[in-house]
Amino acid sequence: MKAVVYKGPREVAVEEVPEPEIEHPNDIVIDITTTCICGSDLHMYEGRTAAEEGLVFGHENMGIVSEVGDAVSTLEEGDRVVLPFNVSCGFCQNCENGYTGFCTNVNPGFAGGAYGYVAMGPYQGGQAEKLRVPYADHNALKLPPGDEHEDSFSLLADIFPTGWHGTRLANLRPGESIVVFGAGPVGLMSAYSAKLQGASEIYVVDRVPSRLELAEDHCDATPINFDEGDPVEQVIDEHGGEVDKGVDAVGYQALDPEETDKGDDYAYDPAKENPAVVINSLIRAVRPTGELGIPGLYVPEDPGAPDDMAAQGRLGIDFGKLFEKGQALGTGQCNVKSYNRELRDMIIEGRADPSWVVSHRVSLDEAPEMYERFDNREDEDEAITKVLLEP
Amino acid sequence: MKAVVYKGPREVAVEEVPEPEIEHPNDIVIDITTTCICGSDLHMYEGRTAAEEGLVFGHENMGIVSEVGDAVSTLEEGDRVVLPFNVSCGFCQNCENGYTGFCTNVNPGFAGGAYGYVAMGPYQGGQAEKLRVPYADHNALKLPPGDEHEDSFSLLADIFPTGWHGTRLANLRPGESIVVFGAGPVGLMSAYSAKLQGASEIYVVDRVPSRLELAEDHCDATPINFDEGDPVEQVIDEHGGEVDKGVDAVGYQALDPEETDKGDDYAYDPAKENPAVVINSLIRAVRPTGELGIPGLYVPEDPGAPDDMAAQGRLGIDFGKLFEKGQALGTGQCNVKSYNRELRDMIIEGRADPSWVVSHRVSLDEAPEMYERFDNREDEDEAITKVLLEP
Amino acid sequence: MKAVVYKGPREVAVEEVPEPEIEHPNDIVIDITTTCICGSDLHMYEGRTAAEEGLVFGHENMGIVSEVGDAVSTLEEGDRVVLPFNVSCGFCQNCENGYTGFCTNVNPGFAGGAYGYVAMGPYQGGQAEKLRVPYADHNALKLPPGDEHEDSFSLLADIFPTGWHGTRLANLRPGESIVVFGAGPVGLMSAYSAKLQGASEIYVVDRVPSRLELAEDHCDATPINFDEGDPVEQVIDEHGGEVDKGVDAVGYQALDPEETDKGDDYAYDPAKENPAVVINSLIRAVRPTGELGIPGLYVPEDPGAPDDMAAQGRLGIDFGKLFEKGQALGTGQCNVKSYNRELRDMIIEGRADPSWVVSHRVSLDEAPEMYERFDNREDEDEAITKVLLEP
Amino acid sequence: MKAVVYKGPREVAVEEVPEPEIEHPNDIVIDITTTCICGSDLHMYEGRTAAEEGLVFGHENMGIVSEVGDAVSTLEEGDRVVLPFNVSCGFCQNCENGYTGFCTNVNPGFAGGAYGYVAMGPYQGGQAEKLRVPYADHNALKLPPGDEHEDSFSLLADIFPTGWHGTRLANLRPGESIVVFGAGPVGLMSAYSAKLQGASEIYVVDRVPSRLELAEDHCDATPINFDEGDPVEQVIDEHGGEVDKGVDAVGYQALDPEETDKGDDYAYDPAKENPAVVINSLIRAVRPTGELGIPGLYVPEDPGAPDDMAAQGRLGIDFGKLFEKGQALGTGQCNVKSYNRELRDMIIEGRADPSWVVSHRVSLDEAPEMYERFDNREDEDEAITKVLLEP
Repeated sequence: MKAVVYKGPREVAVEEVPEPEIEHPNDIVIDITTTCICGSDLHMYEGRTAAEEGLVFGHENMGIVSEVGDAVSTLEEGDRVVLPFNVSCGFCQNCENGYTGFCTNVNPGFAGGAYGYVAMGPYQGGQAEKLRVPYADHNALKLPPGDEHEDSFSLLADIFPTGWHGTRLANLRPGESIVVFGAGPVGLMSAYSAKLQGASEIYVVDRVPSRLELAEDHCDATPINFDEGDPVEQVIDEHGGEVDKGVDAVGYQALDPEETDKGDDYAYDPAKENPAVVINSLIRAVRPTGELGIPGLYVPEDPGAPDDMAAQGRLGIDFGKLFEKGQALGTGQCNVKSYNRELRDMIIEGRADPSWVVSHRVSLDEAPEMYERFDNREDEDEAITKVLLEP
Repeated sequence: MKAVVYKGPREVAVEEVPEPEIEHPNDIVIDITTTCICGSDLHMYEGRTAAEEGLVFGHENMGIVSEVGDAVSTLEEGDRVVLPFNVSCGFCQNCENGYTGFCTNVNPGFAGGAYGYVAMGPYQGGQAEKLRVPYADHNALKLPPGDEHEDSFSLLADIFPTGWHGTRLANLRPGESIVVFGAGPVGLMSAYSAKLQGASEIYVVDRVPSRLELAEDHCDATPINFDEGDPVEQVIDEHGGEVDKGVDAVGYQALDPEETDKGDDYAYDPAKENPAVVINSLIRAVRPTGELGIPGLYVPEDPGAPDDMAAQGRLGIDFGKLFEKGQALGTGQCNVKSYNRELRDMIIEGRADPSWVVSHRVSLDEAPEMYERFDNREDEDEAITKVLLEP
Repeated sequence: MKAVVYKGPREVAVEEVPEPEIEHPNDIVIDITTTCICGSDLHMYEGRTAAEEGLVFGHENMGIVSEVGDAVSTLEEGDRVVLPFNVSCGFCQNCENGYTGFCTNVNPGFAGGAYGYVAMGPYQGGQAEKLRVPYADHNALKLPPGDEHEDSFSLLADIFPTGWHGTRLANLRPGESIVVFGAGPVGLMSAYSAKLQGASEIYVVDRVPSRLELAEDHCDATPINFDEGDPVEQVIDEHGGEVDKGVDAVGYQALDPEETDKGDDYAYDPAKENPAVVINSLIRAVRPTGELGIPGLYVPEDPGAPDDMAAQGRLGIDFGKLFEKGQALGTGQCNVKSYNRELRDMIIEGRADPSWVVSHRVSLDEAPEMYERFDNREDEDEAITKVLLEP
Repeated sequence: MKAVVYKGPREVAVEEVPEPEIEHPNDIVIDITTTCICGSDLHMYEGRTAAEEGLVFGHENMGIVSEVGDAVSTLEEGDRVVLPFNVSCGFCQNCENGYTGFCTNVNPGFAGGAYGYVAMGPYQGGQAEKLRVPYADHNALKLPPGDEHEDSFSLLADIFPTGWHGTRLANLRPGESIVVFGAGPVGLMSAYSAKLQGASEIYVVDRVPSRLELAEDHCDATPINFDEGDPVEQVIDEHGGEVDKGVDAVGYQALDPEETDKGDDYAYDPAKENPAVVINSLIRAVRPTGELGIPGLYVPEDPGAPDDMAAQGRLGIDFGKLFEKGQALGTGQCNVKSYNRELRDMIIEGRADPSWVVSHRVSLDEAPEMYERFDNREDEDEAITKVLLEP
């Protein structure tokens, strides 16, 4: 079958690879109908991880069940399903407690597994024609048959739940105000989630106008362009004070607002990184007793970091201010299963339609080109927010 | 009346000061029966704050109502009461939400007020014969008449609820394991709170044997002496893995375990501080998806800090590891009213008796000597854990 | 001043009564700008309570501060405020825990107080030109100056929070399905609250088409007319199974669906009451492990009840079924202060606009006529959902 | 193998039955080491259910793994395990949300399954030498090897978690007061759970002195003997008012305190049943805003009920009073997996030792005699609280 294979820094190719097979009685195999490129795939693509040549990418997957293991109870051939990017067992202590992003069984020695991702266990990715799914009764979320809502449903694999997770980590309540740093797909989904949950005011911080427009148009958010001044001051001025809650949808590759060139070239420049800048901005922007949700990725080792401390994942956090304000924060990758069922139902009933965040839907063969364009942040005219691949 | 007055770095005196009076119809005045010296008083005593000469110390106060303002509804002369160290109004948004440690009305320009503490509003302290209490219906917790449980009740002003707060910030559940860093009065009360809530295993980290013994004897805790090796490795070895939850009852004046001289001189040496060491140890010691409760004090400005970054309250936190583990953390001073009623009832019914943490009860006149001894950490033979003053 | 005074069964009059005055330093007096007639006023109006002649009605009040007691800290003349229908002190144990509907200080011998309501304490109602407000710092919610959102804000006194309360008692989560029994103002506000919180499907049960239309138009709800068949079966058919959550916005004066005449005369007929019918319908309509929110009024004594058991508030509940399904339920009048701040902010920011539920705004003088029409359920053509009075 | 087989009303026999086998790749088979007789077995024993002759009883089971299905990941021969009485799949919506007592997969057409129980699915009981366990990775809780804590661990199958569940349904918080109706094994475990969670005062209501003594001795509870007067008045008198929380550990076969003969014959007399008496007592005994946990069994059909209404599970509940007090209640059989892990750890670490509730440990062969004695409530001298069987 065809699959998107990692060939080395900034190189992927669509190649023939062996088809996946049932390896365990709880497995299924699916025919991929839609699979997405994720911003976190770029970490591997850029060679900034230990990913090895030959890895099939793709952790945001949906499709049709084509083979069913002997022990599977609730799925059959032809079922349409979407899969959390996390691979999890369903019965370890973390899974039992709802922390399926931190399963201790699927990836020995580490809490958490995923498809097609370096260090996340022996699971090939779904940017391919087929995918093996372990613990299928637990991992596969059934969808209505047909092809309705295909775009929206594909976002249930990762970014819609991950954006939602940001708001839940911050314990957002209806009527509260919130600031979201980052208008990439996760940030946009966080802002959209805040709207769906009845936030009274939503501020979204970024520097790419086309992305900020999406936030304004689809999330009723107030756009804050950090090229136009300190984003925290802008938020406080607009809101008339600090906001109730905050979400960091940027992570460690954050750009320092004071370093960007204010032009309209959005190509990513590691020299301008300041890995703690978003967290420290949130501490300032959120009011005393407020809460911070941090779904944006931070890593314990970063060879490309701007300084030695950051290289080991140690960041200069304004902890004195955080404590004085009595803030709390929650972190970590999303436990997709905590949210995907209810978000699916909101999509089915027309209460949510996150498909506006999809900017491109292309054939699997075009994956190499799209990786390149996505990596170049060719966002001047139209934002490349989310790319879907069709095998 | 007599009161403990700050005279400058490392100097307090018992002096005559004017008696407090009813200033607002919601005030009461009480005759102090017991007032405590708190570890955080030492920050001022050591001259490491902006406290000005003439301040009356004392934020842990209890006594008998002697005067009652016209608007007070539920208190009368002769009532025995204990006061949260926080001064709060009861009706601002934070108070309404239970965050009485972050009241926005009692200390204009800042969220939170207290008695007898620098920058915490215009409230004299209670290390004196009398004390004025604002918003008395809201702030005063009634106690049974008489003098039973006087020691235990006095701890309801601060350290028993603050220790309890550490466990609540960490969302401790019965049956979980927990590590508490610091066996000062707050750490001991956190460990004791963990026991009262049904923790299955409790580890307490310190270097003073007499304090660790208290943890062992009264909290059924496993003592971890960091002079005997990396405390995180010790905890993980003892427990057979990372623990579920952690509490930082140390704060920014944490000693670096690698720097202490391993002897039995426990005098405090600022040169051995490492302000992030406890937080980073907790990140290591607590398991993925675990939670950290941080009642230990961190400050946004610390002129005596070991480096420039710490001087502005910016600490090198292992955020990459924290995120990878998906941990959450809660911070901030205790909202005493969230817990003092239920802890009072546990004391009355004999379910809790925290008085074992009291090491000294002396007359108000002996305050200067006790400040000096407490500040010197004269803990070799018997721990000076908690000093109560009787006017 | 003029006020709506109860004169006896089915009779109110607008009469001159003495103006209220500051009685306690924590009081304010306000000039009423809007006050509402509530469905629960009809219980008194119909003579089905122990209300005595001379009582001034009105527990849903808003206006402008005209006098301020000496102990009040945060309000001044000219402030525009809305008042929870509950009168509460702010500092008893229930108030501290957020249960301001069950204050133990304002109405000795009973948990809970209100303005202008029988047995709810010595507080005159606000269907008048002026109103005295006790514990004003605690009870008054400040509004933006001017007259914008006057209708929506007036609903913050009771029915918008009470409707919201129904969904919170049921622990509604985004993406869940919910059925609301009753399309009176509280039921409509519950359905609207469910929409604002992201419910995936909302069913509203009633028999008055004009009310069901409002639910459909403003809450995206599926209308269920119980004159057309067993409402539970209709809900289960429409939904394809039991729903996740349910709200009882009807209470003890529920009509038995099997007894109504199926015509378009909606005048209320006590002979057709079945006080447990809504609760038992909810138990059937909601799925195992689901939760029921019951803001609809039930009373411990009802002289007009259809049978002896119901007369003492004892109802035949299908408890065996409830237990088998492992359902939970929450009851009780709304603690308005738990929600009014966040709902106010949603109104200000345009996220919520509940004013569509207001059917009539008339002068205070028209109160007697409106009481009569409201009591007659003259709903054939246009629903009389909510009547606002302007002094 | 030998097993306890139901032969008809008030008759069980130890007979040879076929050994269980692996039927599905996720199954295991265990050698039973301890299995308990449960009060709910008596419902079947007394012929008050539709249980058919030939059923093997026993839903409280522990033992050693002897066979392992092909799809099982985390268990191997020789592992010592205890099994929740609930059979559940682990991946339906209810299981995912922690409601493993309401699994929708294991017992088609009903939410919830169990071993050896009428209408709870096709699962033989464990009062036998061997037992088949479906979805074994999910259902089996591993225990330390050996035979330490055998009694305590066996209680993890049902009554310790079920007693704990009562307190959680009531949202008991440390420092609160609680009343538990019923000093059978579940009531005693509820009272013990309340103690472990730091309740300040615990009242236990029953009429059998030997049971009340256990509550006093092991739970620090205040015994309330309802043969000595209205238990609610006794609780209120002792406590000085209504208590915070309540647990119903009796269920529908409650005796009416006004009907018992006050003697020391505790044989059960259905003529004295009043199925709503405990719920209505709780409504009176618990304070406004309090919560009721109802783990005691109520059934939707009871052919032996005292009246027609109760025969269909409809009870006369004082709902008007419940509403006026704003109480909430939670019901349903225990989701054992929600608690068994943490309770196991408390046992291992010596924080909990519920084995005092075990009154008899006998060989499997003695089961028929013990059923008879247990059914006769031969409690005069020594309570028959809990009977363990050893195959």
